[in-house]
Amino acid sequence: MGWGDLGAFGEPSKETPNLDQMAAEGMLFLDFYTANPLCSPSRAALLTGRLPVRNGFYTTNGHARNAYTPQDIVGGIPDSELLLPELLKKAGYTNKIVGKWHLGHRPQFHPLRHGFDEWFGSPNCHFGPYNSTEQPNIPVYRDWDMVGRYYEDFKIDLKTGEANLTQLYLQEALDFISKQQASQQPFFLYWAIDATHAPVYASKHFLGTSQRGLYGDAVREIDDSVGKLLKHLQQLGISENTFVFFTSDNGAALISAPKQGGSNGPFLCGKQTTFEGGMREPAIAWWPGHIPAGGVSHQLGSVMDLFSTSLSLAGLQPPSDRQIDGIDLLPVILQGKLIDRPIFYYRGNELMAARAGLYKAHYWTWSNSWEEHSKGIDFCPGQSVAGVTTHTQEEHTYLPLLFHLGRDPGEKYPLSFASEEYQRAVEHISGLVQQHKATLVPGQPQLNVCDQAVMNWSPPGCEKLGKCLKAPESAPKKCSWPH
Amino acid sequence: MGWGDLGAFGEPSKETPNLDQMAAEGMLFLDFYTANPLCSPSRAALLTGRLPVRNGFYTTNGHARNAYTPQDIVGGIPDSELLLPELLKKAGYTNKIVGKWHLGHRPQFHPLRHGFDEWFGSPNCHFGPYNSTEQPNIPVYRDWDMVGRYYEDFKIDLKTGEANLTQLYLQEALDFISKQQASQQPFFLYWAIDATHAPVYASKHFLGTSQRGLYGDAVREIDDSVGKLLKHLQQLGISENTFVFFTSDNGAALISAPKQGGSNGPFLCGKQTTFEGGMREPAIAWWPGHIPAGGVSHQLGSVMDLFSTSLSLAGLQPPSDRQIDGIDLLPVILQGKLIDRPIFYYRGNELMAARAGLYKAHYWTWSNSWEEHSKGIDFCPGQSVAGVTTHTQEEHTYLPLLFHLGRDPGEKYPLSFASEEYQRAVEHISGLVQQHKATLVPGQPQLNVCDQAVMNWSPPGCEKLGKCLKAPESAPKKCSWPH
Repeated sequence: MGWGDLGAFGEPSKETPNLDQMAAEGMLFLDFYTANPLCSPSRAALLTGRLPVRNGFYTTNGHARNAYTPQDIVGGIPDSELLLPELLKKAGYTNKIVGKWHLGHRPQFHPLRHGFDEWFGSPNCHFGPYNSTEQPNIPVYRDWDMVGRYYEDFKIDLKTGEANLTQLYLQEALDFISKQQASQQPFFLYWAIDATHAPVYASKHFLGTSQRGLYGDAVREIDDSVGKLLKHLQQLGISENTFVFFTSDNGAALISAPKQGGSNGPFLCGKQTTFEGGMREPAIAWWPGHIPAGGVSHQLGSVMDLFSTSLSLAGLQPPSDRQIDGIDLLPVILQGKLIDRPIFYYRGNELMAARAGLYKAHYWTWSNSWEEHSKGIDFCPGQSVAGVTTHTQEEHTYLPLLFHLGRDPGEKYPLSFASEEYQRAVEHISGLVQQHKATLVPGQPQLNVCDQAVMNWSPPGCEKLGKCLKAPESAPKKCSWPH
Repeated sequence: MGWGDLGAFGEPSKETPNLDQMAAEGMLFLDFYTANPLCSPSRAALLTGRLPVRNGFYTTNGHARNAYTPQDIVGGIPDSELLLPELLKKAGYTNKIVGKWHLGHRPQFHPLRHGFDEWFGSPNCHFGPYNSTEQPNIPVYRDWDMVGRYYEDFKIDLKTGEANLTQLYLQEALDFISKQQASQQPFFLYWAIDATHAPVYASKHFLGTSQRGLYGDAVREIDDSVGKLLKHLQQLGISENTFVFFTSDNGAALISAPKQGGSNGPFLCGKQTTFEGGMREPAIAWWPGHIPAGGVSHQLGSVMDLFSTSLSLAGLQPPSDRQIDGIDLLPVILQGKLIDRPIFYYRGNELMAARAGLYKAHYWTWSNSWEEHSKGIDFCPGQSVAGVTTHTQEEHTYLPLLFHLGRDPGEKYPLSFASEEYQRAVEHISGLVQQHKATLVPGQPQLNVCDQAVMNWSPPGCEKLGKCLKAPESAPKKCSWPH
């Protein structure tokens, strides 16, 4: 989902009344970022509070390449990483993930091995359907065991776009909240639904209800679900004791537009890129009785801050034996403070850009290669900024492209290298970047090796269901990451 | 000002709390249009309820060219046109225009000859400063007589961007409202300020207060002024008896970006074009106690509807001896109805495009000429859609380009000519266009002839001020309209 997909963020069909209401009752973050313009690294960053380059969710197979966790990925979240639910457990929290895990699907990466107590959802994206010979369909798990596979047991009709998965995920969340409220236990719910990711789906009730087509139908179903979740908290009388945060894992995938792709509002390009369209996210904090209604914050925020903020809410300290990139947003949310901190825009192993205040400096520019572009893969459809949306990887380390995101949110007008404004801002940002790089210890890259043998052929529980498949022989190879 | 310039419409710095509050208390129109992507024709359309091609505010000097009323224009609003204030007079209204008139500056076009009772403002744009030999500075009028000139008596500091004009215009409006309330007289106030038009200015108090630079400062001053106007109505106890509508005369002028140009949100191109960025406008209706708070309407609306709606509010009928293009929006505003009507996108003498429902058909495409483009004049900076943002005038009459503005608000993905959806939608829209053209009687074009002699050399009142200038000899010529 993109920054521009919500009514509160200016989507022209304004079909998200519940999310807009959530914003009106809570606080809207206008300058909130993911840690990487792709799903897996973004989610790894959220749960560890650390940049993907630290937690291992990146590749060194190519320079500045996006990588994630397809079925043949060998790596996943390392045991050495401390995940938010692992830490919350110490404060008595019960942790549930509903939806897409995406931090590795091999047994050692199972979410219940990494702090979650419950899981209903899938380890990978809902791609498919596969014929079970080249690739198996993605399994859906309930806790330790798979309970079926997408397309086979959990239907997704690619022709009509119908699937009731978001409804299943909603019900899981409602039930979990009810259970926790009944037992008076504190809880962390990570509602990581995979709707609006292509192939886009919505349940029957929502199909055809949006001005925006199937993608809009999916957004409307999410909006409706969030409304039901918030209402549920209110009806159970725990809304004033429950902190809720809504955001996305990367910008809208314009490659899937117009039928399956969303909106990044006035920003440049989309998912896969380190332009604003790829990394700036819709974000809303909600906590009635604590967050002043109708607040708007220009705090530079990150999904990694949800790690630190959640720990703070639980009265816990972040781990002190490692670098944490997230910051505690509670002073921002509760007291309207602004914390001075940079935003680092990574693509794979490369720091492409950095933002401080309203200035953003690009040290590298790249949309995608000419080769990919000529195949019709376009991360910036209809947009073209000379020297900025480049199709070759362009280095600007010694003379970064600088944009003022207030006057120029669309990153169309690089500031003159000769201007005093440029000198001052670049000096400041480059200082922060040097400091960052000097102390950076990259983690072991987890997304370098792929192997058909590790696919979801026989996930735990497949025996009971008679759904075990025979894996091919192991043939590890370098994963190919063209973007 | 553009569609995307208000927080409520998704401007990322969200600095318009008063307009956003106005929207929260009133009704937001998301699909509201001007009648032409340029100032003079748009304002003529608003005040006559008629398309510029009918009321004469267009040129035939070139095909599909934008024209307006610079100082050397000979034409202006014809006497045969009935303006909103002329009609409102019959219902006892006192009418005031504050700000830019722009319907012709020669004596016969004076607003007090066309229904207004009071005027404080200028006949033309606040361009300048001029040295009074080639061109005089634009006069500012109080009612019949000029009271000074821009830059000379009404300062605009082009270096700092400081000018207190919006404050003067605000005070005029507040005083007029107070006077009318005191005398219990109904009133029509046309608050047609010229801020955010380049050269952009703001008063000292607002300079440097926006994240967006000088343009944002100007927006913030307008926002603050609107807030004060609404508060004034409330304090006088007449807010429930006063209908207020906020909108703009064309899309943001991206040619002036990033320092002096605004935002058209997710839409294509800007002012001067018939893409959405040129003609879709921010629009808010406000009338406490009558309009349900927080309403959102997808009614296709037009500035021309303000003519018909205002008449309706005054209990008057629109003239029956001529074609009126505006419709009465009261059923939409008060009862949430949707009225089926097309939107026609004109550029000069040509119907470039038409919208019905969510479909928009382009019969002609043009951004601007290669010649102008090569001079750096760009109405679509950073945007380029092959075959759509063309630099030659491309005719598509027999096979219009069709866009679905719900799925594709940015007009990036023309529908396939072969699709059933295309056939159905084009048949419908082209039928409406044929019907429109068959009955269209174009007015005498007013914007064809220019003459240096008609400039504001010696406006009425210049003698008293000692500010009369000698006009050159008359030398009428065809006006040059390159866009």
